[in-house]
Parts: sequence; structure tokens; C-alpha cells
Amino acid sequence: MSTLALAFDLGGTELRGALVERGGDVVARVSAPTLAGAGSKAVIAQIITLADTLLKEHPQAKVTGIGMCAPGPLDPKAGIVIGPPTLAGWHNVPLIDILSRQFGLPVRLENDANAAALGEWRFGAGRGTGSLVFVTVSTGIGGGVIADGHVYHGRRGLAAEIGHMTITGEGDRCFCGAVGCFEAVASGTALGRRATRLTVPGDGSLLRRLSANGDVSARHVVEAARAGDVAARGLIEAEAQWLGIGFTNLLHLYSPDLIVMGGGLSNGFDLLAPTIRATIEQRAMQAYRDVPIVPAELGDRAGLVGAASLILWAGEPGTALAMVQNDETTTGAREASQD
Amino acid sequence: MSTLALAFDLGGTELRGALVERGGDVVARVSAPTLAGAGSKAVIAQIITLADTLLKEHPQAKVTGIGMCAPGPLDPKAGIVIGPPTLAGWHNVPLIDILSRQFGLPVRLENDANAAALGEWRFGAGRGTGSLVFVTVSTGIGGGVIADGHVYHGRRGLAAEIGHMTITGEGDRCFCGAVGCFEAVASGTALGRRATRLTVPGDGSLLRRLSANGDVSARHVVEAARAGDVAARGLIEAEAQWLGIGFTNLLHLYSPDLIVMGGGLSNGFDLLAPTIRATIEQRAMQAYRDVPIVPAELGDRAGLVGAASLILWAGEPGTALAMVQNDETTTGAREASQD
Repeated sequence: MSTLALAFDLGGTELRGALVERGGDVVARVSAPTLAGAGSKAVIAQIITLADTLLKEHPQAKVTGIGMCAPGPLDPKAGIVIGPPTLAGWHNVPLIDILSRQFGLPVRLENDANAAALGEWRFGAGRGTGSLVFVTVSTGIGGGVIADGHVYHGRRGLAAEIGHMTITGEGDRCFCGAVGCFEAVASGTALGRRATRLTVPGDGSLLRRLSANGDVSARHVVEAARAGDVAARGLIEAEAQWLGIGFTNLLHLYSPDLIVMGGGLSNGFDLLAPTIRATIEQRAMQAYRDVPIVPAELGDRAGLVGAASLILWAGEPGTALAMVQNDETTTGAREASQD
Repeated sequence: MSTLALAFDLGGTELRGALVERGGDVVARVSAPTLAGAGSKAVIAQIITLADTLLKEHPQAKVTGIGMCAPGPLDPKAGIVIGPPTLAGWHNVPLIDILSRQFGLPVRLENDANAAALGEWRFGAGRGTGSLVFVTVSTGIGGGVIADGHVYHGRRGLAAEIGHMTITGEGDRCFCGAVGCFEAVASGTALGRRATRLTVPGDGSLLRRLSANGDVSARHVVEAARAGDVAARGLIEAEAQWLGIGFTNLLHLYSPDLIVMGGGLSNGFDLLAPTIRATIEQRAMQAYRDVPIVPAELGDRAGLVGAASLILWAGEPGTALAMVQNDETTTGAREASQD
């Protein structure tokens, strides 16, 4: 069996673990509902249990380290989970120290959006590109930037907090307290809220029928739009305009080779894409308009394989595509992809 | 005489040249009004003439290369000036090729905002910091980002086009065609325009008296605010709020150690700073609020010395402060400053 990494994706709802190969293939997966209200010790015990399960099921695995992602804010260099809003009782937890003592293995930590950006860059939609911005549009909006072969971290690993980029003066107040955050107007939550306001329970609309007359979610909007519902199509149009404004900012600020859209709302990417593209054509300066906007490819394993790559690709500024091409001795390709 | 670089800052109005030492000191300066309407050949002839003047006046100078900055868009790696709006007849001019053949010296090219960012980072307000965002607020708004010891370039060197980051849905249409660009609401031009609209010629206001009843400029607003004029103070307040919103975005997106504000409007930095700071306190997430916002130190020589450093510090991720500290054998300081 080839060299593997243990990978964990610690979410507020689910804790997932995997054994991952250098090429990004997941050899084995396990998961458990996160004991999110029980404090860090309980959750770390869950991580240890899942790791033991994986290692027992694969006794011949040559595990070289543990790559881990968790919700921000966290300090990837210091290896500290600072205090994620979705995990009660986590305050400056030195997760790398704890896990490396427990397992006697090197441990690397990254925030979940950055890990997913790495995953998509090395093994998914961003293979072979020199740089990308990964945007996850879901309950909130998060992001990760890959440039020059590395995660763009900034001070204390806090760069690419793109959900709290102000893009307008209108809309509902964001949970962060400001008005006009990208997340407050363009997240899946914002889309669901607009759909809920547009309709009333029992009005017979497709949106309310899909939601059993409860609050309408972004998922219901996508489903109704696919069925041709006019109100849902209008909501998708407005949503795509907000995404287009935000993505245009990301083009101007980071000038990536590619924008990759992930998160729950990327299930509706095909519906959103034409208006996202039209908005960029309208708003971005000429030189940025040809940058591709593509859907994520790895779904919920992007964070896991990205975290694993922190171990398996440590210090290597490369993507899986570059690796394959190098193996085929077309070594020029790797340099080209890093240009 | 120590090792020097020839440096040029090609602006739409003025072409400046200098001999610059490794520590950022300017040994000699020359300048000429740019023949901005005469095409690239005429301007390149001006560059060659100024270079000859400098070299003749300093025959013992050991010049190791030419560092040059010019308005964007330009491709710093390819060494090509793509087509600046302020220079007629420049279309994909291979400036590095032309100058290196002319002088037989290595030539490096950078856009003017990035060069100024490098200058302030190595020799000015950003000495000793690991990363910074430089913002120039003048006729327009431009920017440069230093991270991990290098200019953050992105695809084709086009990153940090911060003037065309959308921050609102209101205000006048930007020259780029979009509404809500940072530049369209927060540049010196926008401030002057608001002051002009607030007053009328002959109304006896201080703003119109300072402008001799012509259009009011940002400079007049700063001057009137210094004199305690209430209308001007209100305009400065609104201007600082826009700057605060834009700077908050830069904190969230790049997470720098420092924001440095340069450009013409930085003459009013002391008047603007309290409201910029208050706006950041109000809008930025907690972890970003303690990042210092400081005025640029190098004035109009930031671009020149930054361009020179492309030659004199080639490949070295360091600042002048780090260099000095290393010379004093406190070598830890350099690593700390690069953290």
C-alpha cells in the first residue's frame, strides 16, 4: 500500500475522517456527528476514535502524518483553533500539539475553506492552474486563495475572508454587524430568505409547496427554477447578479487564473452561470473577463483531500496534474502550470 | 561609490529618473515632462537621454541594472507595457527588451502602484513588516500588495486593482463603466466632485474662495477643513467613511500587517484617520481591527526607490530594516519580519 495521510474535516455538524493517497484518492472514510456542544476534549476524543477505526481497518497503511481542517478563525502556522462560532467551548485549542503527541506523527492544520481550495487546486477543478480563488456559497460565503503554489494566508492566516467583503449599501444586516457583506446578500441563506419573503405559506406557489409551506431554502429555489418556475428563475437571476459582483471583485483583487465555486449552492451552478458571466462581462475590466468560472468537482471531500495534501505534498508547490505530467517525463508542464 | 541602480518612474505627466543606493537613498535625480502624446519611441528616447545625463554626472557610479515603473496595465514578467490610458501610442511595448539592449544592463519592470508598495515596504512606512497593502488615493485609486516578501502579482500581474472593487450600489458611474467602484466614490476626484456639487461659484464659501470660484479639488477640501470650515469637515468625514469601507475590505481579503495610504489625498491623512479608524472598528471583524493604517513616508520617490529595489534586492525577500538589523547581527529580526 502506498504512502497515505490521515485526514480530518471537522465541521460543526459532521466530523469526517479518511485515509488519502498522494494522488487524492480516498482509500477509506469514516464519519460521526460532531459533538459540537460538548467542548474540545469530547471532539478530540472523537477524532482519536475515528483515527483508530481507520488504522485498525487498514493495518498495512503507511501513514506519514495527519492533515486536518476546521472552521476558522484558526492560526494554521501556530496550529491553533482560535474559536469557531459553530463549536462550543473551543478557545485557542493547540490542536496540532495535541494530535501530534497523541499519534507521534506530523500534523498540519488549515481552515476548511483554504483546505477545500487546496483540494480543488491539486485534485479537482483547478488542476494544472497556477492560481485560483475557491468560493464556497452555502449557509455563508467563505473562500480560499491559492497563489504561487501556496495558500495565501496573510497575517494570522486570516486572508480571503471574502464573505465579509462589502459589495453594496443595501440588504439585511450581516451577522457580523455590517451592512452589504457579500455573504449577507449572496449566500444560500440570503437566497432562501428572499424566496421566503416573496411568498407566503399556503399561497400555492411551487416554492412553498416544495418547502411544505415552511421557510423556503436555496435548495428549493434551485429545484423550482429547474422546473421552470418563473418566481424561482427571477430569484436565481438576482442571486447570480450578486455573485457576479462579488466574483468581479475577486478577479480585480487577486487576478486568479480561475474561480472555482463550491458549497451547497453550486448544485445550481448551471442555472446561475449565464448571469454570473454576464455580470462579469458588464463590470470587470477587459483584461479579467476571460477568466473561467467553474463549479467545484470534489464536493464534500475537497477539504479532506486538501488537508491530506498538507502532509503528502508538504512544501511542494504543485498540483496532481503537474505530478502526472512529471511522471510522464513532460517536466516542462509543471513549470508552465506554476507560471 | 557603492552599487547603484538606475531607476525610472514613467508617469503620464512627468518622467523621473534617479540613481538609487541599496538602502533606498537617492543619489541623484532628474526629470522631464513626459511626451505623453508622442508615442512610445519619443518617450523611450527621453528615458535614454535622462539616463545619459545621470551617468555622465556620476561617471564613477557602479550601475548594476535599471528598475523601472510605469502605469498599468503592464506585464511585469514579460516586461511589456500593455497600454496605459495616460500614454498615447503605447501598445504592448517590450520595454525590458528595448532598454536592456540599449544599455546592456538587466532591466526590471513593475507597475507604478506595485513599485510604490515595494518602496514603502523596503524603505518607508512599511519597513520591518511581513506584508502590507499600499493604497494610493489621488485622481484614481490604485494599490499594491506585498506578501511573503514579494509583490502579489496574480495572472498577468493584474492583482490589486483595488480602485475597481465594488463597495456600494450608489454614486456616479466609474470611467470603467460600473457603478460603485471604490475609486468612483473615494478618490480625490470623487471628493472634489462632491465639494463642487455642494457649492456654487460666487457663494462666498471657503471652498469656492480657495478654488477661485472654479471647480473645487480635493486639495481645496483638505485646506478648508484644516481652517475649520464646517462644510469641508463634513466632506472629509464622508470621504473617510468610504475609505474606511474600502480599507476594511482590504483587511478581510489580504489580511496584511499594515495598510499604507499614499497619493495626493494622504496630505490630509491626519484629518481622515479618525473616521477611517472608526469605520474599520465598526465594520471589520474583531481579528482585523488592530491592524495599523499609516500614511506613506516616501512621497513621490516611493515608485523610484521601489523600482530600484527590483535590481538591488533582486530575489531577496527583505526590507531595509531587516537588512540593517542583519548587519547588526541580530539575524532573528529578519525572520520575525518575514513571519
